[in-house]
Amino acid sequence: MDAIEWLEGGITAVPGFFGAGLHCGIKPTSARDLALVYSSAPATVAGVFTTSRIQGAPVKVTKERVKAGVAQAIVASSGCSNVATGEQGIRDAREMTEVVARELRIPEARVLVTSTGIIGRYLPMEKIRPALPKLVKALSPQPQGSRHAAEGIMTTDTHPKEAALRVEIGGRPITMGAIAKGTGMIHPLMATMFCFVATDLAIARDAVQAALRRAVTGSFNRISVDGDRSTSDTVLLLANGLAENRPLTRGDRRLRVFQQALDALTQRLAVMLVRDGEGATLVIDVQVRGAKTRGDAEVAAREIANSPLFKTAMAGRDPNWGRVMSALGASGAAVQEERVGIWYGDEQVAVNGKPRENVRWDRVKAELAKPDVTLTVDLGLGSGHDHVWTCDLTQDYVKINTGTS
Amino acid sequence: MDAIEWLEGGITAVPGFFGAGLHCGIKPTSARDLALVYSSAPATVAGVFTTSRIQGAPVKVTKERVKAGVAQAIVASSGCSNVATGEQGIRDAREMTEVVARELRIPEARVLVTSTGIIGRYLPMEKIRPALPKLVKALSPQPQGSRHAAEGIMTTDTHPKEAALRVEIGGRPITMGAIAKGTGMIHPLMATMFCFVATDLAIARDAVQAALRRAVTGSFNRISVDGDRSTSDTVLLLANGLAENRPLTRGDRRLRVFQQALDALTQRLAVMLVRDGEGATLVIDVQVRGAKTRGDAEVAAREIANSPLFKTAMAGRDPNWGRVMSALGASGAAVQEERVGIWYGDEQVAVNGKPRENVRWDRVKAELAKPDVTLTVDLGLGSGHDHVWTCDLTQDYVKINTGTS
Repeated sequence: MDAIEWLEGGITAVPGFFGAGLHCGIKPTSARDLALVYSSAPATVAGVFTTSRIQGAPVKVTKERVKAGVAQAIVASSGCSNVATGEQGIRDAREMTEVVARELRIPEARVLVTSTGIIGRYLPMEKIRPALPKLVKALSPQPQGSRHAAEGIMTTDTHPKEAALRVEIGGRPITMGAIAKGTGMIHPLMATMFCFVATDLAIARDAVQAALRRAVTGSFNRISVDGDRSTSDTVLLLANGLAENRPLTRGDRRLRVFQQALDALTQRLAVMLVRDGEGATLVIDVQVRGAKTRGDAEVAAREIANSPLFKTAMAGRDPNWGRVMSALGASGAAVQEERVGIWYGDEQVAVNGKPRENVRWDRVKAELAKPDVTLTVDLGLGSGHDHVWTCDLTQDYVKINTGTS
Repeated sequence: MDAIEWLEGGITAVPGFFGAGLHCGIKPTSARDLALVYSSAPATVAGVFTTSRIQGAPVKVTKERVKAGVAQAIVASSGCSNVATGEQGIRDAREMTEVVARELRIPEARVLVTSTGIIGRYLPMEKIRPALPKLVKALSPQPQGSRHAAEGIMTTDTHPKEAALRVEIGGRPITMGAIAKGTGMIHPLMATMFCFVATDLAIARDAVQAALRRAVTGSFNRISVDGDRSTSDTVLLLANGLAENRPLTRGDRRLRVFQQALDALTQRLAVMLVRDGEGATLVIDVQVRGAKTRGDAEVAAREIANSPLFKTAMAGRDPNWGRVMSALGASGAAVQEERVGIWYGDEQVAVNGKPRENVRWDRVKAELAKPDVTLTVDLGLGSGHDHVWTCDLTQDYVKINTGTS
């Protein structure tokens, strides 16, 4: 891996990128509920969206605009997702981009829009409309610009998520920065989460779209909080080319380094999302190896990562590997009980599908006392390998989601 | 539907059936952890088992014996499931049947065995072995025999489950009775649950096996508590023929009434299991109609019934139908947002995929105040219909499953 230098801050660590966030009254609290990301130069754009068959109005509008390939701003709101809102929802999403475009004096088609929050309610446009000009005026290239934008997209997140890095690509220093939000419905198949990535790299549209899809597969598609999936998931990447490198195109050898850096950035944010999952107290990396196929490893890892019984056991720091066996059996992956091995950290607890004798339980206990636990399952059937990051399921998760909302 | 007369009691309501349950020390409390069901006459047997690829030793032993077609006793234990225990597990399961057979003076092959509880631990045979003769001695044809057996198979159930009925089949009164256990891992695909059904009907093996499978499909395969699946699920039916009717065989017209009665009995127990789901405070019947196919209706109903976000909303009596839309979108069923209608009880809350105006929220509130709530989703695409019973997800669920076990 070529040297990645992690930087402070998020999206505004990247030359030419500005951020802003403020409160307009969508959320009942005084928390920020509007966010704006802006690039002073038109940027090549890539996007990856929810696979749900019901998609929010903002997703529909933004998907269409990402196809055009150029964007310069992302306006986002939190507290109301503008999903299941019919034609009115589409009009509201478009109006948000229209006002922002007018204030920024850029074409409306270059403004993307995303919303997250409760489904089945109309956006309070009477609050959002007058706040958008203020949002544009608040744009800042300082760290606080990124921080405020990261806060503006939060729902039940307990803190904003940002990451930034510098990496040399073809002899030139390139910066990448991102903000993200998650918690709640986060799922292997990318549920209510946003991630907006900025870079000053010059790169062709098809190359950056392929790289983003690949990065998402290894990051936001490998996490699980509660197994639910959202209607609003959106990952966007804006590359404004201010680094003035010779543009990367498909097949370019420099893409390898870009992919590594993008993978590192998105994986760092993905783990942040899991760690801040609703009520979560630890992150578990569920590793499945020795599967007949990679696909089998994936479904087995997902079944374990989504099992309420495994996740509640983890909340109690209970190394109850029987619940892992149970999830394996139910996963649909090829499993032969007498070949299964299970480890917490480096300590094996089950061998040949049976309790291992003389387990050093103090070592298991030490592993479970860490904020990052690794569970490894070896199916002993082949060389298929995959993993999913998940969190524990605590009473706080239920508390958060039981309140009338 | 021909007249079904519900009776008090459970398995011992049926002529020739005896039950017993006692505490031998598998469970740390003083609760009963052994159960025995015995028929004075050899019975035709049918069985339906977990679809998990990892199956408990008792499931393996019992499956084999059910194939032979004749059984006379079921010995069950709770507190330790004897799963993931290799060859030792098989030996232990067999020994349980061997001791019971010797005491009952019947062939060992006629004794079935089931165990439920923690996975990955060996049965404490030193406690079970000496208790089995006492268990046989405790057999009783009285209501308490059934009650004690129902208690002996409980894990986190808060109370024993029994049901019994009388129905006229071909002019003869026939009795059916059953005991069941559930909670926790109960899932659409039949997870940790037992149900033992007894009847004095004379019926051919293939006819009763087909009827049992059909009854399970419409009852225990239509419930969900937490989406997990178990390694030990077992439904057994013993028909001892003491009613001395002309035996029912495949194609027999009297089978229709038998099926109706068996369906009614198993559905009643299935709903009991959901109502006693870990931490559950209400039962929700998730009805999906207007689906393109019946299969689509099923996957949509299951996705809603298993959604932690929907289930936590129900715990808070929050009619947040956005979470229903979200589950629909993620289910994989064909969905067109603008055709979706959603009802709580008789009150529609969403129409054409949008919020309905002038919802009478007092009626919704009244529906959610009931112990049995009906959620109806109309996909507006065809005539496919299916339903799943589920329960809410409360903090108590997490509490129950977090404790070291």
